[in-house]
Amino acid sequence: MTHVPARQQLPPGLASLADHEQQARQHLDDNAWAYFSGGAADEISLRSNRSAWDALPLWPRVLRPLAGGHTRVELLGRTLAHPILLAPVAFQRLAHADGEVAMAYAAAALGAGVVLSTQASMPLEAIAQAVLPDPGRGPLWFQVYLQPDRGFTRALVQRAEAAGYEALVLTVDAPTSGARDRERRAGFRLPPGTAPVNLAGMQAPPAPALGADQSAMFDGLLHHAPTWDDVAWLQSITRLPVLLKGVLHPADARQAVAAGVAGVIVSNHGGRTLDTAPATATALPRVVQAVGGAVPVLVDGGIRRGTDVLKAMALGASAVLVGRPAVWGLANAGATGVAHVLRMLRDELEIAMALTGCATLADATPALLAADSPD
Amino acid sequence: MTHVPARQQLPPGLASLADHEQQARQHLDDNAWAYFSGGAADEISLRSNRSAWDALPLWPRVLRPLAGGHTRVELLGRTLAHPILLAPVAFQRLAHADGEVAMAYAAAALGAGVVLSTQASMPLEAIAQAVLPDPGRGPLWFQVYLQPDRGFTRALVQRAEAAGYEALVLTVDAPTSGARDRERRAGFRLPPGTAPVNLAGMQAPPAPALGADQSAMFDGLLHHAPTWDDVAWLQSITRLPVLLKGVLHPADARQAVAAGVAGVIVSNHGGRTLDTAPATATALPRVVQAVGGAVPVLVDGGIRRGTDVLKAMALGASAVLVGRPAVWGLANAGATGVAHVLRMLRDELEIAMALTGCATLADATPALLAADSPD
Amino acid sequence: MTHVPARQQLPPGLASLADHEQQARQHLDDNAWAYFSGGAADEISLRSNRSAWDALPLWPRVLRPLAGGHTRVELLGRTLAHPILLAPVAFQRLAHADGEVAMAYAAAALGAGVVLSTQASMPLEAIAQAVLPDPGRGPLWFQVYLQPDRGFTRALVQRAEAAGYEALVLTVDAPTSGARDRERRAGFRLPPGTAPVNLAGMQAPPAPALGADQSAMFDGLLHHAPTWDDVAWLQSITRLPVLLKGVLHPADARQAVAAGVAGVIVSNHGGRTLDTAPATATALPRVVQAVGGAVPVLVDGGIRRGTDVLKAMALGASAVLVGRPAVWGLANAGATGVAHVLRMLRDELEIAMALTGCATLADATPALLAADSPD
Amino acid sequence: MTHVPARQQLPPGLASLADHEQQARQHLDDNAWAYFSGGAADEISLRSNRSAWDALPLWPRVLRPLAGGHTRVELLGRTLAHPILLAPVAFQRLAHADGEVAMAYAAAALGAGVVLSTQASMPLEAIAQAVLPDPGRGPLWFQVYLQPDRGFTRALVQRAEAAGYEALVLTVDAPTSGARDRERRAGFRLPPGTAPVNLAGMQAPPAPALGADQSAMFDGLLHHAPTWDDVAWLQSITRLPVLLKGVLHPADARQAVAAGVAGVIVSNHGGRTLDTAPATATALPRVVQAVGGAVPVLVDGGIRRGTDVLKAMALGASAVLVGRPAVWGLANAGATGVAHVLRMLRDELEIAMALTGCATLADATPALLAADSPD
Repeated sequence: MTHVPARQQLPPGLASLADHEQQARQHLDDNAWAYFSGGAADEISLRSNRSAWDALPLWPRVLRPLAGGHTRVELLGRTLAHPILLAPVAFQRLAHADGEVAMAYAAAALGAGVVLSTQASMPLEAIAQAVLPDPGRGPLWFQVYLQPDRGFTRALVQRAEAAGYEALVLTVDAPTSGARDRERRAGFRLPPGTAPVNLAGMQAPPAPALGADQSAMFDGLLHHAPTWDDVAWLQSITRLPVLLKGVLHPADARQAVAAGVAGVIVSNHGGRTLDTAPATATALPRVVQAVGGAVPVLVDGGIRRGTDVLKAMALGASAVLVGRPAVWGLANAGATGVAHVLRMLRDELEIAMALTGCATLADATPALLAADSPD
Repeated sequence: MTHVPARQQLPPGLASLADHEQQARQHLDDNAWAYFSGGAADEISLRSNRSAWDALPLWPRVLRPLAGGHTRVELLGRTLAHPILLAPVAFQRLAHADGEVAMAYAAAALGAGVVLSTQASMPLEAIAQAVLPDPGRGPLWFQVYLQPDRGFTRALVQRAEAAGYEALVLTVDAPTSGARDRERRAGFRLPPGTAPVNLAGMQAPPAPALGADQSAMFDGLLHHAPTWDDVAWLQSITRLPVLLKGVLHPADARQAVAAGVAGVIVSNHGGRTLDTAPATATALPRVVQAVGGAVPVLVDGGIRRGTDVLKAMALGASAVLVGRPAVWGLANAGATGVAHVLRMLRDELEIAMALTGCATLADATPALLAADSPD
Repeated sequence: MTHVPARQQLPPGLASLADHEQQARQHLDDNAWAYFSGGAADEISLRSNRSAWDALPLWPRVLRPLAGGHTRVELLGRTLAHPILLAPVAFQRLAHADGEVAMAYAAAALGAGVVLSTQASMPLEAIAQAVLPDPGRGPLWFQVYLQPDRGFTRALVQRAEAAGYEALVLTVDAPTSGARDRERRAGFRLPPGTAPVNLAGMQAPPAPALGADQSAMFDGLLHHAPTWDDVAWLQSITRLPVLLKGVLHPADARQAVAAGVAGVIVSNHGGRTLDTAPATATALPRVVQAVGGAVPVLVDGGIRRGTDVLKAMALGASAVLVGRPAVWGLANAGATGVAHVLRMLRDELEIAMALTGCATLADATPALLAADSPD
Repeated sequence: MTHVPARQQLPPGLASLADHEQQARQHLDDNAWAYFSGGAADEISLRSNRSAWDALPLWPRVLRPLAGGHTRVELLGRTLAHPILLAPVAFQRLAHADGEVAMAYAAAALGAGVVLSTQASMPLEAIAQAVLPDPGRGPLWFQVYLQPDRGFTRALVQRAEAAGYEALVLTVDAPTSGARDRERRAGFRLPPGTAPVNLAGMQAPPAPALGADQSAMFDGLLHHAPTWDDVAWLQSITRLPVLLKGVLHPADARQAVAAGVAGVIVSNHGGRTLDTAPATATALPRVVQAVGGAVPVLVDGGIRRGTDVLKAMALGASAVLVGRPAVWGLANAGATGVAHVLRMLRDELEIAMALTGCATLADATPALLAADSPD
């Protein structure tokens, strides 16, 4: 059975992603709103993700030839219509009954890549069915955690391979959840009908017997926290390229390259894990320099404008991911809303390119961000 | 028939241009307010245009001889009473029935130059008739875009020459409109009776047939976007000097000089095109340095105080342009309001000169902005 | 006849100068409030005067010997109980019927110096009678402008000498008023009973006949603006030391020293003349360095805390002046209120000295403001 | 008689220390709130204590081995379960009838050290009885001022030794109270039933007869202010190690080491003494560098998050102290509330360690705060 998302009308007055956010506040209950919008602790990183993009100036260039320009990029051997992907977001049925399938249909229609969360609320196969038939689609990737139950993890990876996913995105920045105050204050819990269906059957690790001087965190929860060795293990059990998501420190990026990953995603988990972690726009150029072109570097976190996308590309990103905005679109109008969000973002990207004299994204270099470029 | 603007009383309590803005909010409907006041996207550049002037300190100087001082400047071979011009603003009949003609009368009476927008809502000849008879008037320039219909553009330029305009101002920073969220949210549209009357009869270019992998922006809208070659074409069809408006990057300024333009106007289109473009006060000294005195450099964007005018001159501008403030004056009291705005700005400029020890604007050098000047 | 100020009760709840300000808002009508509290234009300098003191850190020192410490300073050959003087403020009868006389009584009782404004609303002789008999009083100075009517200026100086004033403070930062928007909006005017009584009989200069291309400002108002030559003239007609008030630029300070002035007062006229002039805390160390110890440097502008006084001394000031706070005290409780303001400021100064290990103000050096002092 | 604190229920919705603060505002009357929450003067240092921690970025590290990690630290020869101590806070019975005893029970149960204030509102012996029997307890220290009555001070120290206190914390940053405007405005006074019971019987020094030119502050209040000589005296009368609390300047820290103190506590008295004193997060690394590892450096002031604790450790602190948060917990739910505050802070510390790749606090180095660490 294929889930076909409903056709919905777009509410009026949506001129930007921020408008979608405001509108979505009306369509999401407090529980879902706290889950999707909250960040860790005082939400300093959440806010700085936004403000760091805003603080980067774009220096316009004029009278450059623009006819025939385009937004196409190369990524892992494929040509994409544009560099915008959907970031993995868990439990999208909290936002809309059509959940991840609606997101996937819209993304495929708009040429955007999809990174499905391992905590999706719909079967990974259904999302693949929604995406793969579309000839204009972007890449289809599957996000995984290294679960303590390694047998289950292996089986999950095999399901993803079988369903047609093209890469694995290993999230490495969340060995433990952050201090999610907003969720805790709201008493967040999954409502009936929303569950991490792809994790059904996974075994929780046996709770270790803790001595009096042992830590519930370090000796318990983190006993199975993944290390670089586990990256090697994941690579060894799959034929898919593995990207690392959640890298901010250039030294970790260098180690990732040495470990043979296919790409690095600069991310602070949308400001949801370690508060006061640096903004991704701050970390990106450092990671790009550390990686030195060996593998693609992607980035997420606070990207809400076409100008943000262009700035990320100027700083050396190969592509960007957006998370919450797609949820807002989903909440506002299902697949139609997601498509609208992606359309606006891409349109804004084209406008930003035109106004900075970039016919293609190869023109997006650090010179866009400073006045002292030679010519 | 000559349109003579009505004599109006000035509302009470207007002690600054900001007071005019607040007052104008009452006189403009939501549609017109969104059009005139809005900027691109999150309006970061719109705000930074203002804050950048505010952030520049002026170091007072004392006990210098001031008697016989004046605000006169030389510009393109003419002596102006002061360095303030009116920037091109479209559709001024949205603000007042007397529209651009009222603006022109007031400007001429106050010795301010006029740059008429190609999207004026009144015939360019009427504005020329309002300005040219006044012996104390400032320069009269006509602003143009390089429209895809080049025959129409040529005819329009010939009309401007015939009407007595003294220079052409080619706007180069808007090959496409910015993301004007405020206008879109307000559902902005031109009301009956307001139209770009000087563009009547212009041919829209045929829509190119786009392939599936072509961009509506780059292969459609921007197919006819002007390049440096088109600047040469414009110069070849007119005997008027051509200034370039919308230059922020020093490299573009250098290229403009090489192209033989008569002047460069540092502008980010009032924050209406590319959001997060640098403030004009930030770009100005870089452009001045790049131009190296070869041609005059003008600036607009956020100039609301006589101190702002003085700072622009100190940074090397030959003159400044103000846009929105004149619209506020127009909305508040027609020609009287525009004259009041210009009078206040010039009075404030004289006060600022006196308090910084500048008898003439030749004394306005970068030393005004720093304490480490030698003398 | 000697005016003896009434004894008033202090309203409750006044724990700081800011409390006095808030309270004074209740005791002053809109007219007087606009006059006393307003600054020039957008009041950027008015605010930065405050924020610049706040931004300077004070590094505490511990366990230093403090017994027997004191706040005494030497100034122009006299020993003062503390370094706080009252700045010249015009028209104090706007705040209280006892006006400048109340201010003077309170200052003398608290050992604070008095700089009487040439625009005082009570006779300069009455203020001298209030101050001079008090053995604990601080210095008594008279503030002058170089009025176009030089004969009147000479006579006024002679009156001040005869009345016992000990120095002249020549204000040089106001050849013209600033753009006082707040006053203009409030339609400020002097009410009956408040007038610049010491200027009675002064001749306005004849209005020069202005040609069409002459400036009402530069050829009219500023025709008689004082220059360095006029400073020499003032020095030549008086036996009193002459201090210059309103110097911010180090080059002007150097010239003042060369002109033989007795002291320099770093001031931006309380943010009332040139908006965006630098904060006095920003200018002070530059002026101190330029003067190089040749003459005392004083400072006013935004001093509201004992820590501000200590910071000024640490930056090299010989004394400080406060203007508006005394007016608030006057409005709240006449002479009692002024005394309370001065008492709190001095008490706070002693606390700040104790907590930074300064037994005397000779210990207030730039090392207080930085952690890298040697020991 | 042993005071056993009541068992209380925790109010719902407390997900952070900031939630405790908000809740406590409901449980404390205006008098107690002004006392506990206020800072000196304009509370600039109070706020900057917080914002300085927030402004330090933490750079996450990924995929590092975390199993078996822990929060243990060594301090003055003991191994502590974690580096969080309770700072000395006076008059805790203002917050809850169980006062300092409840605080002590909770701290001992959570392994947190206790620094009892000399101004505690319950007998120092009762607090020792609450702490000492707990095998998992942290250190138990007693805070003292050098009171003018030295005989009393000696007796008090002997009582503390006899009761089992393990170190003395000499507060040196408050030779006089700061300008506590908030307390003064609230008319703060101790209610019946709350008193500095451990200071009963202390003799006030005789008021010196002050001459007319003497200062009530320097010649009166500060006549007995302690100096470095008094530190030597205190060390001479006790067998306990003496730590100095209230050091910000590196030069004072060096002198403290030379004086043979057992440790230095970087503190600005919670922003309650000298306003505009630097934030403790600003002073800490300078003090750490000055001390050069000779003795432990502790820090308090604005620590509200586990990330703040980790940052302090990264900057070189050996442990941290929290004051107001424990009072909030106490006000909200007595001993239960204090325990909850400590539990949350430690849990957050473990999360922050996990997300920055720190298995132990030995991994908390300055490299956590910058991206340019070598590896």
